[in-house]
Order: sequence, then C-alpha cells, then structure tokens
Amino acid sequence: MAGSTFGTVFRITTWGESHGKGIGVVIDGCPAGLKLSSEDIQKFLDRRKPGQSRYTTQRNEPDRAEILSGVFEGYTTGTPISLVVFNKDQHSKDYSEIASYYRPGHADFTFDAKYGFRDYRGGGRSSGRETIGRVAGGAVAAKLLSELGISFCTYTRSIGPVEIQTFSQEEIFRNKLYMPDGEAAQKAAEYLESCMASKNSAGGIIECVVRGVPAGLGEPVFDKLDASLARAVMSIGAVKGVEIGDGFQAAASTGLEDNDGFCRQADGSTAKTSNHAGGILGGISDGSEIVLRAAVKPTPSIASPQKTVNRSGEEIDICIKGRHDPVIVPRAVVVVEAMAALTLADALLVGSTSRLSYLQKIWGEQL
Amino acid sequence: MAGSTFGTVFRITTWGESHGKGIGVVIDGCPAGLKLSSEDIQKFLDRRKPGQSRYTTQRNEPDRAEILSGVFEGYTTGTPISLVVFNKDQHSKDYSEIASYYRPGHADFTFDAKYGFRDYRGGGRSSGRETIGRVAGGAVAAKLLSELGISFCTYTRSIGPVEIQTFSQEEIFRNKLYMPDGEAAQKAAEYLESCMASKNSAGGIIECVVRGVPAGLGEPVFDKLDASLARAVMSIGAVKGVEIGDGFQAAASTGLEDNDGFCRQADGSTAKTSNHAGGILGGISDGSEIVLRAAVKPTPSIASPQKTVNRSGEEIDICIKGRHDPVIVPRAVVVVEAMAALTLADALLVGSTSRLSYLQKIWGEQL
Amino acid sequence: MAGSTFGTVFRITTWGESHGKGIGVVIDGCPAGLKLSSEDIQKFLDRRKPGQSRYTTQRNEPDRAEILSGVFEGYTTGTPISLVVFNKDQHSKDYSEIASYYRPGHADFTFDAKYGFRDYRGGGRSSGRETIGRVAGGAVAAKLLSELGISFCTYTRSIGPVEIQTFSQEEIFRNKLYMPDGEAAQKAAEYLESCMASKNSAGGIIECVVRGVPAGLGEPVFDKLDASLARAVMSIGAVKGVEIGDGFQAAASTGLEDNDGFCRQADGSTAKTSNHAGGILGGISDGSEIVLRAAVKPTPSIASPQKTVNRSGEEIDICIKGRHDPVIVPRAVVVVEAMAALTLADALLVGSTSRLSYLQKIWGEQL
Amino acid sequence: MAGSTFGTVFRITTWGESHGKGIGVVIDGCPAGLKLSSEDIQKFLDRRKPGQSRYTTQRNEPDRAEILSGVFEGYTTGTPISLVVFNKDQHSKDYSEIASYYRPGHADFTFDAKYGFRDYRGGGRSSGRETIGRVAGGAVAAKLLSELGISFCTYTRSIGPVEIQTFSQEEIFRNKLYMPDGEAAQKAAEYLESCMASKNSAGGIIECVVRGVPAGLGEPVFDKLDASLARAVMSIGAVKGVEIGDGFQAAASTGLEDNDGFCRQADGSTAKTSNHAGGILGGISDGSEIVLRAAVKPTPSIASPQKTVNRSGEEIDICIKGRHDPVIVPRAVVVVEAMAALTLADALLVGSTSRLSYLQKIWGEQL
Repeated sequence: MAGSTFGTVFRITTWGESHGKGIGVVIDGCPAGLKLSSEDIQKFLDRRKPGQSRYTTQRNEPDRAEILSGVFEGYTTGTPISLVVFNKDQHSKDYSEIASYYRPGHADFTFDAKYGFRDYRGGGRSSGRETIGRVAGGAVAAKLLSELGISFCTYTRSIGPVEIQTFSQEEIFRNKLYMPDGEAAQKAAEYLESCMASKNSAGGIIECVVRGVPAGLGEPVFDKLDASLARAVMSIGAVKGVEIGDGFQAAASTGLEDNDGFCRQADGSTAKTSNHAGGILGGISDGSEIVLRAAVKPTPSIASPQKTVNRSGEEIDICIKGRHDPVIVPRAVVVVEAMAALTLADALLVGSTSRLSYLQKIWGEQL
Repeated sequence: MAGSTFGTVFRITTWGESHGKGIGVVIDGCPAGLKLSSEDIQKFLDRRKPGQSRYTTQRNEPDRAEILSGVFEGYTTGTPISLVVFNKDQHSKDYSEIASYYRPGHADFTFDAKYGFRDYRGGGRSSGRETIGRVAGGAVAAKLLSELGISFCTYTRSIGPVEIQTFSQEEIFRNKLYMPDGEAAQKAAEYLESCMASKNSAGGIIECVVRGVPAGLGEPVFDKLDASLARAVMSIGAVKGVEIGDGFQAAASTGLEDNDGFCRQADGSTAKTSNHAGGILGGISDGSEIVLRAAVKPTPSIASPQKTVNRSGEEIDICIKGRHDPVIVPRAVVVVEAMAALTLADALLVGSTSRLSYLQKIWGEQL
Repeated sequence: MAGSTFGTVFRITTWGESHGKGIGVVIDGCPAGLKLSSEDIQKFLDRRKPGQSRYTTQRNEPDRAEILSGVFEGYTTGTPISLVVFNKDQHSKDYSEIASYYRPGHADFTFDAKYGFRDYRGGGRSSGRETIGRVAGGAVAAKLLSELGISFCTYTRSIGPVEIQTFSQEEIFRNKLYMPDGEAAQKAAEYLESCMASKNSAGGIIECVVRGVPAGLGEPVFDKLDASLARAVMSIGAVKGVEIGDGFQAAASTGLEDNDGFCRQADGSTAKTSNHAGGILGGISDGSEIVLRAAVKPTPSIASPQKTVNRSGEEIDICIKGRHDPVIVPRAVVVVEAMAALTLADALLVGSTSRLSYLQKIWGEQL
Repeated sequence: MAGSTFGTVFRITTWGESHGKGIGVVIDGCPAGLKLSSEDIQKFLDRRKPGQSRYTTQRNEPDRAEILSGVFEGYTTGTPISLVVFNKDQHSKDYSEIASYYRPGHADFTFDAKYGFRDYRGGGRSSGRETIGRVAGGAVAAKLLSELGISFCTYTRSIGPVEIQTFSQEEIFRNKLYMPDGEAAQKAAEYLESCMASKNSAGGIIECVVRGVPAGLGEPVFDKLDASLARAVMSIGAVKGVEIGDGFQAAASTGLEDNDGFCRQADGSTAKTSNHAGGILGGISDGSEIVLRAAVKPTPSIASPQKTVNRSGEEIDICIKGRHDPVIVPRAVVVVEAMAALTLADALLVGSTSRLSYLQKIWGEQL
C-alpha cells in the first residue's frame, strides 16, 4: 500500500522518478475491444509537456509514450496495458546541494521523515513528472468514456487574482494558459510576468466539466462519486482544495437557493431545473453536467531567498536555482481531466453490476 | 463494491437504513490490546444525536451503541468489532407521499436511476442516520489514536454568513452549535431563527484540527494523506467542498506567501515556521497540526413550496412536512472528526511498514 | 486487513465469536432487484446446524438468521444486507481450564502468538461457528446465481478411508452424512462409530460441482477462477488441500490423457470432449461443470489424552471434554458450497466489464 | 480487476505478453532501506530460464531484468520498483495456424469466450512467460524476508510417477530437475525421455518448505495464511491442486494421528512435537516450517495428434509444432517459491499492525 494504485475495476498503477530511467503506468481492467493507439495517449501527454510557453519550464522533454502490452492489432485485449515514457534529459548533474536541505513547500522533509532517506534528484517520486503516469492512464480512460458518449471540458478558471469573466470553449486551446476567456488570459499573463520579475510564483483554480454522464454512477456511502473525485483530484501534488458544484459557496447559501428542482423534459424524462449540486446527488450522478474545481497552490520552487534547515539541522538561507514554471496550473489542467476520467471509468465499470437486470442483459444470452 | 467499506488496514463496513431495524458498523483490523467500552462509542454518538437544541430535530432517538463482538474482558482482541444501534422510532407511518416524488436536493432520484427502485422510508440508506456507523467506527479509531498521542479539535467555523472571529477551545462545547466563538454562536442562532421563520435552511463550514500526528503518515501518489482525508470528508452526505491548510486561498496566494519555511527547534528537531500547508507536504504528514475544512450545504428538506416531478413524470409542487434540522452543521461536526480519525488510523497502520527498520523492530525479537 | 472481508465487487464481511452475542455478515455489492427472504438463508443455515445426527454435536442452537438491512418489500435494494444469528446457548460456563492451555490442532497457540491474548470461550473467533457468516452470505450469492441459471451439487466424497463408489444426486439429502452413495454412507457411519468408541475423530473429502457457469468467468493471472476458489475453500477452518478437476492425479498423468479435446455441439457451439480440467482453463471458466474438492482434517477436539503445554509453559496431559463432532465433514459440505457461490458471484460481477460491448449493452440505452 | 495485482500491502502488478515488447512487474509497498540490485532478481530469473537442459525448451531467451525505478544508491526507497524483461526472441513468425484453432489444455478458447478475441502469438498473456513478472517480484520479496531470517527450500517432489525417496538439500541444485534425490532425478529423466519419444508430456509435484517464519503471520477467517498461499500457488498456470502439511492425507487420517502436540523447548518457548499441520494453525503461522505442495499438470503442448475445433466451429485434427518443454515442473519450482515469498512478505507487513504494542514500538519514539 505505498499508494501507487488507483481504482477498483478500472485500475492504474504508476511508477517512476523524475530523474530515473522513466515514468510508467500499468492499466488493468480496461475492457477488451477498445480501439487504442499511442497517438491517443500522446494527445494527452502533449497537453502537459513543458516548453509550451514562457510560463512553463523550457526543459526539452519530448515525453513520447510507448505501449508495451495489452493492445493487439489496434484494440485492447482486456489484459494489462503497460505504458512507458523513458526519461531523456537526465544529465549527470550535481545534486549535492539539493540533497543537503529541505526545500520549503516540497516533500523533501516528509520523504525523509517517512523513509529515512530519499531520491533527491529532481524531486524523485514527488516531482511533477509523476503525473505523466496519471495522464497516460487518463487518456485511456477518456477514450473508453468517449465510446459511451462521455466528454470533458477542462480549463484554467483563475490564475492568482485573475478569474475568467466570460466562457468560450474554443478559446481554451487558443491561449497558452488554457483559459476560456482570452481577455482574462491576457491579464493572467501580465500577472505571471510580474511574479517572475519578483522571483515569485502563482497558483490558480482549474475547473472540469463532464458531459454525457448517465444518471446512476457512484456508490452510496464511502465510494460516492464526489468522494472519489475529491480523492482523485486532491491526490495531484499541488492541489489544496476540491469543490463539487457550488462547493464552498453552498455553505453560505440557503436551501431555497441551493436545491435544484426537477422537471419533465420533452422526451418524458426527468431533469433538473438548475445544477447547484454539480451533477451529483447523494454521491450518485444525476444526469446533469458534473462540475468540479481544484485549488492549485503556487509553485513552491522560487528564486527568492527562503529560510530552511539542512539535513544536519542547521538553519540556512537558500535560493532555488534552475528554470521552474512560475505557475503549474496550465500544465495541471490535463492532469485534473485525467484523474476525473479515471474516476468515472471506474465508477462506470463498477456501476454495471448495480441491478440484477443488467447482469441478465449480459449473461442471459450465454445461458 | 457498493462502497460501504472504508480503509485498507483499519477498515470499517457500515450498513443500515433510516427506518430499518438498525444501523451498524463492523470494524476490522483494529489492533489487539486497545481498552474499549461502549461508553467510548456513546460519547461520540451523543455528539450527533438529535434533540440537542431547537436547531436540531426533536425526534426521540436515544441511539445506544451495543458491542456485539471483538472485545473481550475490556480489550479489543484483533478480530472484527461489530457495533449496532437498533432503531427505536419506527412508526408505521404513511410514506406513500414521499415514495411518489423526488425531493429536491435529496438522493431519491439518483437511487431510482441507479437501482430501479428505493427504500423511501425516511431516506433509506441515504438518510443522515447512515452516519451513525461512521461515528461509531470513528470513536474506535479516535481511541486508538489517543493511545499514540493524537487528538482532535473539531468545530463549526461558520453557519450561513456568520463566521467565527475568535477562538476558544472551551467555548466549543458550551454552545449548542459547537462554535469556538460564543458571540458568533449567538449571531448564528439568530440567523437560524430567521431561516426557520422563512421555512428555509442554512449550511456552514466545519473545521477539524488534528494534533500530535507524527511526520511520515500518508502514502505518496494516490493515497496521499490529504487525498484520503478529502475522500473521507466528501463522502459525508451534504459536504460539497474540502480544503487542507490554506485551501482555496492558496490559489490566489504566491509562493513567497504560501511556502512554509523550516527551522530548528530547541530539542534539535526540524519544524516549520508557519502552517499554510495544513500539516501535509507531498501527501505526507509533516509534524504540524493537520487542518481541514468541509463545506456543508443547507438542509435540503424545507417547508417552503418547491417544484419537482413524481414517479409518473408529472410536474408537481411540494412542501416537505415534518420537523427537520434547519442546519445540519452542528451534528455533522463529530461526523467530520470521525472520518478524519478513521483516515488517520488507517494511515498510521499502513505507515508502520514504510521502513525495513520498523519491521525489524517488531519481528526481530521473535527470530 | 484482519481478513474478515471476501470478494471484490460482491463482497462479504463477517464478524462474531463462538460465545459472544452473535455471528453476522454484511453483504455489500449485491445487485438490486433480487428476491430475497430470510427463508432463503435459513435453508442454507439448516444444512450446517448441529444436532442433525449422532455424528454432529448435540448442542441446541436453532441458529435463526435475521435480515437487518438491504431488503425492502422482498427485494434487495443494492445497499448492504446485514444478517445476524444471535447466540442462544451462552451458559456462564467455566472456561478457566481451556483458557490455561493450548489445545492441539486448534488455533489457541497461534492467536496468543499473534494478538498477545485470546477470547478462549469456545474457541472465540476461530470456532466453527464462524462459518455461520459464510453460509448466510453464500445463501445470498447462491440465490443470485440461481437467477442466472447456475446451480450447485455438493456432497461428502469420503470420510476417513471410506470413499463413494456410486453417485446418486437424490441420495445426498437422504443420509445424514450427505453422501451420494447410500452404501458408502452406511460404511462411513460404522467407521465413525469406531472412531467415537476409541475417543478418536475422522476427516474426509468434500466435492462441489457447479453447473451452468458460462464460459468467460475468472480473471487471468492472479485472480484466476481456480485460484479464487482455492483461497475461498482453503480459508475454511479445517481444510488442508484443494483440487480442481483431476487435481493431484493430473501430476501423475500425461498430456495425452489430461488434455480435453474440443468438439462442435449440435447447436454449433464449442464444447469439450472430456473434463479433466474441472471446467477451468487458464483461470477462466470453459463452460463445462466446475469440479473442486476439499480435504478436511479430522476434528481436533478428541477425548483421548494428548500432550500440550499451558500458558505458563509447563508440559501437561489433557483430555478435551464436552460433546464434539467426531467428523465435521457433513456440516462443512454447505460451507464449501457457500464459499464456491461467493467466489462465483464475485467473478460474475467482475466479468461483466470484460468487453466494451457489454458496457454498451448496459449504458448505451441511457446515453 | 483484470486480476494482475497480488497482495495488499506488499503488492505486485504484472504485465506483458509472450511475444509483445516485454514482461514486467511493478512492486509497490516494499519498505525503504532494503539493499537490492538487479543481480538479486537475476538469480531468481535464471532458475526459470529456458535451455537449462534438454527437458526445457531450447529457445534463446537471456531474460535480463532491468530495474527502472524505486532503487536509489543501492537501496529501495519505498516507492514503486518497476522491473522489466524485454523480449528478444520475437520473430515475425507465421501465427495464422495457431490463431485459427483452440489448442487443447490451453486458454485459447476461454480467452476468446471472455474477451471476444485474443493475442494468439505464443499464447499471449496466458503464456508461461507471464511468470517472469511473478519471479522478478518474488525475488524482491525473498530478499526482504531474508533480512528477517526467513528462507526457502523448494524442489521437485515428483515427475509423473517418479517420486523422491530421499532428501538432500545440496542435491537440489546438482540435477537439472531440481530434485533432492539424485537417483529419483535419474529415473525421472528416463521417464521424460520416454514421454518425448512418444510425443507426450509429464506433470509433477513441487514442494516448498519455508523456514524461520515467526508465529503470528496470517489473518483469521478469509486471509488465512494457508488460504493466501493456496490462491498464490493455484494462480500459477498449470497448477491443479494445493496442499498444506499433510494435505489430502489428513482427510484419511484421525485426530490422534493428525494433531500436533505442544512441548516446552530448552529456551522456555513453546513448540510443536510434530508438524502435520504444515506450520499453520487456524490460518496463522505456528513457528514450525511451512510446508506446501503444488500439483502441476502435464505440458499441454504435445506433438501427438489431438482433436479440436477451429474458430469457424469445424472439428479438426492438429499436431502442435515447435519445441516445448516435455515437463514444466523444474522451471516452475522457482515460480512456486516466488509466489510463497510474495504471500509471506505481504502477511508479514500486514501482521505488523496486529497489536497496539507493535504500533507503540514504532510510533512511540516520534511522539
């Protein structure tokens, strides 16, 4: 239980360190018969790759995914899909300085506290490169969901104090910050410039909207769909908060404002008249869009001087060198989407056994 | 995977419906040798029982816990601890009305969508009474943690628009709203009166502070301590958001503000100079207080008219009858604490195998 | 992970001690819409109850199952089904003797070694009464499977040196030993008389045949259907060996003898020409009958003198008092069937997600 | 839940097909601080590699393991250890024949039944090459156990009708069949020659003895140590039966014969006077040697003509070409040992939380 596995039926296990030989993921439980190519995965990886803009690190990491197993003649076989991205950019750099102290806001101290020592090269397992495994796995989950009519729209909602004011889905991929409001993106870019100039960094909020989810996904009590999404998203390195629907605003609201009414649709089906709940009631999807938000803290690696202690327990002042993203939000957008896709794929597979009639639909024909 | 189990090594499974024969929990994996009595559990249950004030439902439910297994001569034996609270107050009431339509903000619609039908008596499995199993299980987890020096301080941080301005730990148990600020509690009570007068309801925010957690709990990647806490707390019925440390405020902050420095303590150990991280770095406890917040939505059962549809798909207007809590926050305080305790107990047991030297400490003597 | 949970999607958790307040099971993940009554469970429990013959203990334990949750208006709701059998026969007996020493062949010593102490009353958690939870859970699994055309035929294959020579399914329930060969049953009864006369006990072999299992159940690699069955059956207290199909005889066989050919059936489908494999190939059901056998050791509680040590470490001679079954095989027949049913129910639910087309069959209609 | 994961706390996930790019394993939950090199793994892999004798396939597969993550400066870091063996010997061979029909005794038919199609190249995921992942993972488990004083002695007990009559531990690695009786090895070799001459194959029995296991490992009820071992060993491709201690012989024995007495040892500790139980009582290790046996069926790939059907449902006669092991037992010896090691490593880690005093030993110092 070193915690590198996610999911019950659609399940991924990730491995790899920032400056080790590579980063990988094993996807077990993906149904057979899904068309899958390395391009499906590459599209997702490209959204998190560095060097996309001057607000993301300039390191040259092509991050090409290879499929090592589980796909035959272009289709998943039902057996584990092993994906790997080999690390290219491993200079025999001098890590002696970083090895000697605890960077504020990083996991250096806690890894030492837990394990007694750590792989200090580039953050080791706690590096942002760990998310490559999630994104590769999430690409497969998203492909599976798309076959069932489920799609994602994920974007930067705010960077530092700059929040979107308008929403244009097309705009999301037009600016480097993945914001659905071009004007806000411009302001956010200016804010990031000022952060960089003052050797500082910024955080932000990512929003993910999922469309086409049928009502009935998620298990009551502990495996509620929102609980699983919260765990999934909070497990991303820099995330410090998660909301569903109205989230923290619901706490200041009233029942009359927050309750979503029900109405009859033209086709006779039942729908909600609003979506304060963010598409989940009692932990089960209600057929509306699922809406979640993640609060991402500012990049902890900053060039300004900071106080810390070294491994000998002496108090020292440090300045973190090297090029670091002044904000990780834009690259984390696809990570949030990947985690949401992994959560939904698993919920969908588990939900397939919620009624006896579902089993009869599958197994009846063979009896 | 109907999702009624929580935890990997310290693991609970809950069962029971609002108006069934009872509510229970089976705790598996509790270490042997822990002193435990039904009073330990009752103390927790009493904090969530109804009828504590005019802001909680007046139903008469004594909610007495019985220990059915796993305790012998006052100590846990290492085998499953089965706890049950039998339901006393099951009138043969007429449920035909509630059975016929979908209450806004409740899980009636989604249970039907998932299972094809539902136990509609008092909300069935999706009732707030489901939390009895969590609280009873959490009481055992908290007792275990207390033996290792870990304690909890959980309280109402806000109700509707009224937030605490001061903090007095003694005050928490002095007012019926479990607020650490007597003046705020008074204002919140007035706000609740106005909600009740207008047949409306309120939400609020619960904060939980955990003290004495050693550095090193939590597993990197998916089972990060904050991710597990987020799932645990978001799985409580009305919770719509979870934060750790600065939470959503971190998103608008900068690296210089948000990073916690490290310093050397008098005894030579390392500590942080601030706690924006809320006691968790890289998903692992850092030795500071763990701080988390949960956003609770307003009680969905309100006496005002609301629009909905019935099971025949007809649009109707309804008014929900009966006495309902105008706010569930005060009674949910202990539920949040219980879920945090369950999460930490499990993390502590799993963390016991993180180093070879820990194993040698336990097994070396027997070899 | 005190190991009281079995199954991944169809999952049971059992609890209870021999002389505690009761024995119970929580079944989570049973699909909604299954007709279920306490009689369905009682039928299974009656097959393991004591006092059925002079070869089973004469204690008076009616062992009535109560359904505490998860069933509404006669059908499962998809939420946890809690079943309990309250212990009736708990005399305030003197256990000081049994508490003081380690009975040969029992778990007294190992429970002390693991936990530091034990609930010594009647064997506590390691008593045969623990199987009540399994049998009650297995009854629900078997009911679910019967809706999908799957049925069981389980019986005593041998007792001590006496093995069945003929097979008559009707005969199984005609004799008290559950043997499908009346003559063998007579001989086995005589053998048991001689064991009892010499204060000794006997073991035996139980065989379970499962019919109607569609091809395709079981997961490759670690969750092979035979591996899951082996674990399930070996987890029954006195079982020391498990075989599938030809089992240990296959080890002395040759490929030409052991391989099952394939042929075309009248309806065009593929079947096997023999069944040495016992219905499982590569860990996946092949559409033939599943055949498994369990070796049950002799009852360890015997009235003859035996050598042991007491808790002070002194060597002593003991004679175990009280009435004990001279053989547990007949009462264990239904326990083996229950464990097989639980394994298959879980495999069937997990198998429902093995193909994308299965998911489309379930979720396609709602999109 | 495609079942490619084994273990709860010490957990492996394997992937890879016979003729894909490689075979691998991810080990999660291995404690930090274990000295580990690729040589530790290679020693295990070499024991299963082909070409060791004329009774094993002559294919040239060097099967070199690479460590891709989780080891830093020679020690495990506590993060996932990814091991891979890249496949070298993938000719662009013609598989059209094997793709067209179902080989008797193989999983071709059941994979098609489960998934709708299969990777037919060399058996795909159901090939014996799948065990490379197990053996590599088991090598790490065995290394961990050796640090705690636990060791293994695993060997061929019988091949076809030829069973060992004497036992010499040194002899095991002296003959190519891994038999502890040189004379029996000679007779077995002759038997295999006759099988090969008649285009037939043989099975056999593997025995594994584990020394140094402290009393107290294994969880009562479903996760009994013998149940976990049974699952582990039965999950190996060709295994059809598993026994612990006296196994099936216990079924024909009596209580007086089968019970192991207890005695006091010179150092005051308690031990058993015999070991019919095979080192496990009530599912928990009792401090004696753990003894288990696995029945391995004859190699299903034989050159003699066999009856089967092709994918069009036509009945045909086939002769399987290529060089195949006439017996897989010798190469499976290390696979059984690997599975036993994985089971014990997991039980040991889980067992570390069985007593409150164990937790205090670990966490007390940090509080």
